Amino acid sequence: MIGAGQLARMTHQAAIDYDIDLHVLASTADDPAVLSGAKFTIGDPDDFADLAAVATMGDVVTFDHELVPPDHVRLLEQSGHVVRPSGGALLFAQDKLYQRSAIAALEHPSVAVPAFAPVSSVDDVTAFAERHGWPVVLKARGGGYDGRGVHVLAGLDGALRLLDAGAAAGEPTWVVEEHLDLAAELAVLVARRPSGEMVTYPPVGTLQLDGMCRELTMPAHVPAGVAAEAVRLAESVVARIDAHGICAVELFLTRDGRLLLNELALRPHNSGHATIEASVTSQFHQHLRAVLDWPLGPTTLYAPAATVNLVGGPGSLDVAARLPLALEVPGAHVHLYAKTSRQGRKIGHVTALADSLDDALDAARAAASLLTGS
Amino acid sequence: MIGAGQLARMTHQAAIDYDIDLHVLASTADDPAVLSGAKFTIGDPDDFADLAAVATMGDVVTFDHELVPPDHVRLLEQSGHVVRPSGGALLFAQDKLYQRSAIAALEHPSVAVPAFAPVSSVDDVTAFAERHGWPVVLKARGGGYDGRGVHVLAGLDGALRLLDAGAAAGEPTWVVEEHLDLAAELAVLVARRPSGEMVTYPPVGTLQLDGMCRELTMPAHVPAGVAAEAVRLAESVVARIDAHGICAVELFLTRDGRLLLNELALRPHNSGHATIEASVTSQFHQHLRAVLDWPLGPTTLYAPAATVNLVGGPGSLDVAARLPLALEVPGAHVHLYAKTSRQGRKIGHVTALADSLDDALDAARAAASLLTGS
Repeated sequence: MIGAGQLARMTHQAAIDYDIDLHVLASTADDPAVLSGAKFTIGDPDDFADLAAVATMGDVVTFDHELVPPDHVRLLEQSGHVVRPSGGALLFAQDKLYQRSAIAALEHPSVAVPAFAPVSSVDDVTAFAERHGWPVVLKARGGGYDGRGVHVLAGLDGALRLLDAGAAAGEPTWVVEEHLDLAAELAVLVARRPSGEMVTYPPVGTLQLDGMCRELTMPAHVPAGVAAEAVRLAESVVARIDAHGICAVELFLTRDGRLLLNELALRPHNSGHATIEASVTSQFHQHLRAVLDWPLGPTTLYAPAATVNLVGGPGSLDVAARLPLALEVPGAHVHLYAKTSRQGRKIGHVTALADSLDDALDAARAAASLLTGS
Repeated sequence: MIGAGQLARMTHQAAIDYDIDLHVLASTADDPAVLSGAKFTIGDPDDFADLAAVATMGDVVTFDHELVPPDHVRLLEQSGHVVRPSGGALLFAQDKLYQRSAIAALEHPSVAVPAFAPVSSVDDVTAFAERHGWPVVLKARGGGYDGRGVHVLAGLDGALRLLDAGAAAGEPTWVVEEHLDLAAELAVLVARRPSGEMVTYPPVGTLQLDGMCRELTMPAHVPAGVAAEAVRLAESVVARIDAHGICAVELFLTRDGRLLLNELALRPHNSGHATIEASVTSQFHQHLRAVLDWPLGPTTLYAPAATVNLVGGPGSLDVAARLPLALEVPGAHVHLYAKTSRQGRKIGHVTALADSLDDALDAARAAASLLTGS
């Protein structure tokens, strides 16, 4: 697995059940998956030699994040390594312009994307805003996550500042998009294996704050028809891009009832953390099964569930020391990532199951609040 | 944790959630918990220096097995280490004669024990059989597990052979017990922390074969009154012996409706494996919480569950290679222990949840059978 963050850490926990030796490419010996005891190599995915060294350790190469040069992934495949998801599928998660363009170019696109345009200079933003009106959304073409690289712009001033900073020229590094009036944001987890078998979890509702996902409910609190349509769109996209492993298909639900594609993540995803306790098969077990081309597991929910992320604030925060307080909340499932707290950094999450989404959310919030003291 | 078997392995998986650094005393670098990535020291619990070395690694010493010299445990406590369960409580799991004698000697024993007598020579067996009739059960005083050290004897011949082999003299090394006519065997998991807080799981029904536990159902298929009485007895015993951590109280249910104490295990236990998927709090999370004196978690069941152990047979057995076959069974939760298969050795288990115990048992059996090819 390329990367050794919390997703690799939780994948390692699942791998133990199946007696799979997960070997991770870590940036330091303090990475969350290393601290959980996964075998590791320290290196940099930007360095092909490091990638190749880890690839030779196992039967299948997979990912904890998508910050891997696409050329390197292709080269791994050309060298005979089994890479799942493939480099071709991974590109949909690595490059927002590619994702938008490739999906919009399909003759019968399985899902709509917001109006968008590549941005090589500020003129592109102006031209787009003239057609679609302000505000617009400027998104870094690659590398952004947790709200980094996403900017809502009310007018040209903001665009100028951002593009100046990036010294935009030649190859577009930004995408400009219409600003949508959102009713909700959804994420649909789909697992797909090379044999073609595909299973899908009930859509998750995600609540963002400062562009970062803070709270999730599973299932999402949307009408059954919307949920069914979200599942249909997500499955269709995953099959079209021929992805293998767990895929998180993030969707916008607009106030006028349209579902549009937001992001794709071709790996275990924050939106699926509740599956650890709430689903018959966790997303981490499922990802291992899918990339190994093993039979997939049921995605049935035991009960409505909510997850609240633990996010570092401006001050120091010792969640480990506060853990016993949070465990007073009955049924709060706490997951700590062994990460030092920093402003805006996800350092853990809490999941709770209950008879209703509201009760689950109340319990998860109560425990999270005890952990962060906020 | 003293010992690095599958119980330590699954405790390590739970410890990752809480960002607890579990450090195990392992006998080899191939022990199940070592292979799952727990920090480890290689040594022998019979060597006090090894025990002390591991004890200094952490805040609390606890156990994966009870094969630790009681004097060593006392010495650890006298050296200021926090040992949970305490040496005094652990003795009830280490020494069958002590357990039987101490419980029978209570003025108001909280639970009945089978008729028993210490055995220093074959005359003790004869005298016991004259009072209680043949067959009798001869049990090794300590060190036995999974049916090792337990013998049902129809007459004196068998007793002579066993006692000759042990060269019994002086200190009794066997206990003789009445042979009970059993309707069922139950196990009740109780967690208790130093603050006194105690929680109990629904009783588990255990099915033995050759003295080894093969199948478990949670809850046990017994009348509600029997289950309630089993819980009452188990809690009473655990409080009386002042145990901390998870305790498995194994009980005999006789055909004439009596509940008698069988074994005590003061650690996570095979009978509690279904709690990983079926309970709000797994026995491994619960054990960590109890020995750290943290708030205990709910023991509510999500659904009826069954566990089938994977036990090595006479031939070679590669369960890892057969795993994809077993995952075809919907909802089969497979746990492999990374142990080489040997005759009579537990190398993994399968748990399934369903709407009924019968359906859960069918699913767990189907997957187990695919894994072992039997």
